[in-house]
Amino acid sequence: MTTDAGGEPPSDPPDDDAGYRLAVVDLLGALAYGELTAFERLADDAAFAPTVGDKAALAAMAVAEYNHFALLRTRLEDMGVSPEEAMDPFMPALEAFHERTAPSDWLEGLVKAYVGDGIATDFYREVSAYLDDSTRTLVLQVLEDTGHSRFAVDRVRAAIEAEPRIAGRLALWGRRLVGEALSQAQRVAAERDALAALLVGGMAHRGADLAEVGRMFARLTDNHTKRMATLGLSA
Amino acid sequence: MTTDAGGEPPSDPPDDDAGYRLAVVDLLGALAYGELTAFERLADDAAFAPTVGDKAALAAMAVAEYNHFALLRTRLEDMGVSPEEAMDPFMPALEAFHERTAPSDWLEGLVKAYVGDGIATDFYREVSAYLDDSTRTLVLQVLEDTGHSRFAVDRVRAAIEAEPRIAGRLALWGRRLVGEALSQAQRVAAERDALAALLVGGMAHRGADLAEVGRMFARLTDNHTKRMATLGLSA
Repeated sequence: MTTDAGGEPPSDPPDDDAGYRLAVVDLLGALAYGELTAFERLADDAAFAPTVGDKAALAAMAVAEYNHFALLRTRLEDMGVSPEEAMDPFMPALEAFHERTAPSDWLEGLVKAYVGDGIATDFYREVSAYLDDSTRTLVLQVLEDTGHSRFAVDRVRAAIEAEPRIAGRLALWGRRLVGEALSQAQRVAAERDALAALLVGGMAHRGADLAEVGRMFARLTDNHTKRMATLGLSA
Repeated sequence: MTTDAGGEPPSDPPDDDAGYRLAVVDLLGALAYGELTAFERLADDAAFAPTVGDKAALAAMAVAEYNHFALLRTRLEDMGVSPEEAMDPFMPALEAFHERTAPSDWLEGLVKAYVGDGIATDFYREVSAYLDDSTRTLVLQVLEDTGHSRFAVDRVRAAIEAEPRIAGRLALWGRRLVGEALSQAQRVAAERDALAALLVGGMAHRGADLAEVGRMFARLTDNHTKRMATLGLSA
């Protein structure tokens, strides 16, 4: 994906330091809890794995997510912030999302990981354009693909090739995932003013207008459609 | 626990190389699959964690188990053995054990990890006395406590102090765990001749007799009783 919103990203925090700091703590807290639940989810998916090799592969990806979580926790501690307190506000939305989208089998788990992480990663990358250098470097580092994408695409495509009729069910599943993700994202945006302000304010700071916000969502949607196509599914 | 079975451990593999090699592959395969399921189980338990700090602590322990698994897998590969094939024979017994002893809450998960891993660790340490130096060093390395024992004891004791009536239920749970573990261990011993021969043969090699086998089981039982007492539970 691209973060071509135009202009150079700021190398220093924007004007309102207190608000910016709150937003960064929110962002890192949300990401940290996201990585911790990604760890759990991949470990859960490992239980569905059809072979012990697949199980070990999922476990390795879960460990990579945990290591990302640990990096974010260290950063929060370095900022003098309690990681637990930073993560707390995002627990309800992330737990609700995962409760409502518990995969019922191995393939649903893979689609969820690929499609869900894809949207989350795209979103955080867009936001990272409005961050100071040091925070942006950290965010991009923890967004690095842990090898899960390739793995999920290979397994899902092979499964559809072997049994084409499952494509319909998995496509429906993909749409449900996006719907639930959007509904939880709206909940977070409504509750976390600083975070919402970072996005809108950061964009305003760089001369972006509402049309740019619209273009960002269009990019997120386009990328989602491409990912579904990569899996061999209609979005 | 102690491995005071007397005499020096062998620094070279015992006489029958082919049988010994089979037994070592079995042992490493069983341990590797045990570590991989320990990873999964701890990650599962993390979902029950009452606080995000406890969740992160469990995740860190799960990662440590995965790293042990990776060490064992590398050793099996170095021996020219497929890790999957080495682990396969032990999947049914380990999966059956975990299916029959799925914890229903956070405390049952902690008791299971402490009591179950304790017995397994004691058993592998006893067996390690009959291994060549290099294999023994690896086995002892992957048996190292990942910090889970201290964590489980602290949490379980505090919970019993706060609500003494749960001790009865958890003591029953501990007894059920041991019963299931023994029944699965018997199944493995009946099916894996080389592994059973390593234990009995290794002991014979060192002049141990049936009385020594009996003493080993007595040590395992004693240590289990001590662990239950450490938790504040009757065995």
